[in-house]
Amino acid sequence: MPADRIYNFSAGPSMLPLPVLEQAAAEMLNYRGSGMSVMEMSHRSRAYLDIFEETKAGLKHALAVPDSHEILFMHGGATLQFSAVPMNLIGRTGKADYAVTGNFSGAAYKEAEKYGEVRLACSSADKGHTYIPAQEDIAVSADASYFYYCSNNTIFGTEWKYVPETGSVPLVCDMSSDILSVPVDVAKYGVIFAGVQKNMAPAGLAVVIVDKALAGREHALTPALMSYKAMIGSDSMLNTPPCYTIYMLGLVLKWLEGQGGVGGMEQIKAAKAKILYDVLDDSRMFTGCASTGARSDMNVTFRTQGGELDDKFVKEAANAGFENLKGHRIAGGMRASIYNAMPVEGVRKLAAFMRGFEAENRDNFFTIEGNTH
Amino acid sequence: MPADRIYNFSAGPSMLPLPVLEQAAAEMLNYRGSGMSVMEMSHRSRAYLDIFEETKAGLKHALAVPDSHEILFMHGGATLQFSAVPMNLIGRTGKADYAVTGNFSGAAYKEAEKYGEVRLACSSADKGHTYIPAQEDIAVSADASYFYYCSNNTIFGTEWKYVPETGSVPLVCDMSSDILSVPVDVAKYGVIFAGVQKNMAPAGLAVVIVDKALAGREHALTPALMSYKAMIGSDSMLNTPPCYTIYMLGLVLKWLEGQGGVGGMEQIKAAKAKILYDVLDDSRMFTGCASTGARSDMNVTFRTQGGELDDKFVKEAANAGFENLKGHRIAGGMRASIYNAMPVEGVRKLAAFMRGFEAENRDNFFTIEGNTH
Repeated sequence: MPADRIYNFSAGPSMLPLPVLEQAAAEMLNYRGSGMSVMEMSHRSRAYLDIFEETKAGLKHALAVPDSHEILFMHGGATLQFSAVPMNLIGRTGKADYAVTGNFSGAAYKEAEKYGEVRLACSSADKGHTYIPAQEDIAVSADASYFYYCSNNTIFGTEWKYVPETGSVPLVCDMSSDILSVPVDVAKYGVIFAGVQKNMAPAGLAVVIVDKALAGREHALTPALMSYKAMIGSDSMLNTPPCYTIYMLGLVLKWLEGQGGVGGMEQIKAAKAKILYDVLDDSRMFTGCASTGARSDMNVTFRTQGGELDDKFVKEAANAGFENLKGHRIAGGMRASIYNAMPVEGVRKLAAFMRGFEAENRDNFFTIEGNTH
Repeated sequence: MPADRIYNFSAGPSMLPLPVLEQAAAEMLNYRGSGMSVMEMSHRSRAYLDIFEETKAGLKHALAVPDSHEILFMHGGATLQFSAVPMNLIGRTGKADYAVTGNFSGAAYKEAEKYGEVRLACSSADKGHTYIPAQEDIAVSADASYFYYCSNNTIFGTEWKYVPETGSVPLVCDMSSDILSVPVDVAKYGVIFAGVQKNMAPAGLAVVIVDKALAGREHALTPALMSYKAMIGSDSMLNTPPCYTIYMLGLVLKWLEGQGGVGGMEQIKAAKAKILYDVLDDSRMFTGCASTGARSDMNVTFRTQGGELDDKFVKEAANAGFENLKGHRIAGGMRASIYNAMPVEGVRKLAAFMRGFEAENRDNFFTIEGNTH
């Protein structure tokens, strides 16, 4: 890592691999002899279509997407899919089941209520979204058009360790914050979607992987650009796609391949997360926010016993080159987002910093504890 | 212009100012000492919010946007506005009037039919969209929720030389291909929108300027991310915006300021267009496609008398470093898109190339003409 770059633990947008940024900078004025930037290319030009197709093929390879499913590049990030999913899918029965295990699945649930009868299949709100419900606690109805969940909860730092069993009800999953970090059996899903700004590319794009058999039943008022059928029919080019973001995704996918692909990344990300969870488990100052069995490998949430000490930690960490460790305002505490592009040395150095902070502030900590914080 | 860069006459995505690309490349790994790329910044961080606010202020200044109107950065390009406009606005009376003067206003008309009663206020389809109807040929009804038109027709190379008079009916205008090239009296409009990939930034963003008094009457099924009210309420941050694209727009706006702003650009673009239209007017080989009174300063459409000669021209032009001169498939012929970022020397050189081509192919041309092409 160059000395002038910092370790950025932002929950998204977040770090991109350094070689990817270097290549993007090098190709900015003249992409491989084309005489123009990728930003300037007609989306219908051969040069750009090569980039587009290579990116799509890279994603198909990385996630082993079967031919039954189509990969779409859609505008609007994950949030527009909160609307697109019900607009495209709820029409089959008029009903859908949602698992609400965090902020974004809650927002998706609320948005879906505009379009049909939405039922709460399970919720972790009773314990502040610190856990993931077990299979036996999920109420799946056979008449649901689909079952919706979010595989990793960015804000609360929890992740589903299993794929819910829903019988013949199609699974829909928001994988925004853990896609490409773990192998996925895509055939099990009706729709997988992800905003790209955490593990894939700069913000401004959603990757949507759709079982083609589910497309074509959208609500009559669905905007053309949100129709899975229309997007499949136009190969994501119903209008000009976010071309440069797709190019960046292509560069990230090539970098990922060099890390051993998604399988290699699964090992790396588990090792990175373990470094931080070991600190939490060894600490008398820091506590993990998520219940042990639901800990996310992407977003590590923790706190001290005092708000003032939390603030001191975040401030001193930033001064030491560890940025964006403040937790989300609705969760409080701290959060270290360690997506694919966060180097393992960044995590190791943060772990060392945490141990050092605890040693230095032990007295302070006990004082605050004595103050019943 | 560096020798390895070519003149790119693409209709969009299209050229960006060279100093903008140079600055983007220079700041790619470390934006002004932040230790990170703009692509990696949390959209809620102070560093990014400064970029966001500066870009918004730059746009407000460039177009003299009054306080009655809000500037929104929205996902989905212009095409999602084809749906967003009726979803937000048609509810007032259930009816809207559309001027169809090209491909994109036609697509907007068709999309709007999902949401209410859409009426054709005028059309230039009778003459292949080669002209713009006069004010007296427009049927505006007092009960229209809005009147819709597209100020510049990218494919056919025509532009509205006047602002339609619609009484109390709010004006909605798609300015995708001429925004920032000419001053606009924003107060006259209910909604102005533009995909950014022609005159403003890389693809993947729409700039929407909304009269705040019109927001809040959206259809109940409007996706949250498409609601003008919700977007105004969140200052375009209902979700992560296309952050990097907004940064690029900010760089373009600073460059534009150095060109004398929109007023300065109006002079420059008129002079550039005149260079090419003079060639067409002087030529016995090339003919302009648009009627003289409706010629666009952004997209100059022309043809020879023969398809083979058209192909020869496009091919030889590309070999000479003038890329993407082939006309759109639905219009045929040639098209030189000369948006703000196309340097005047690119236009001069193309004009010289056209005159040279005519001189060299005069015999060929007469042969083809003799062949009744």
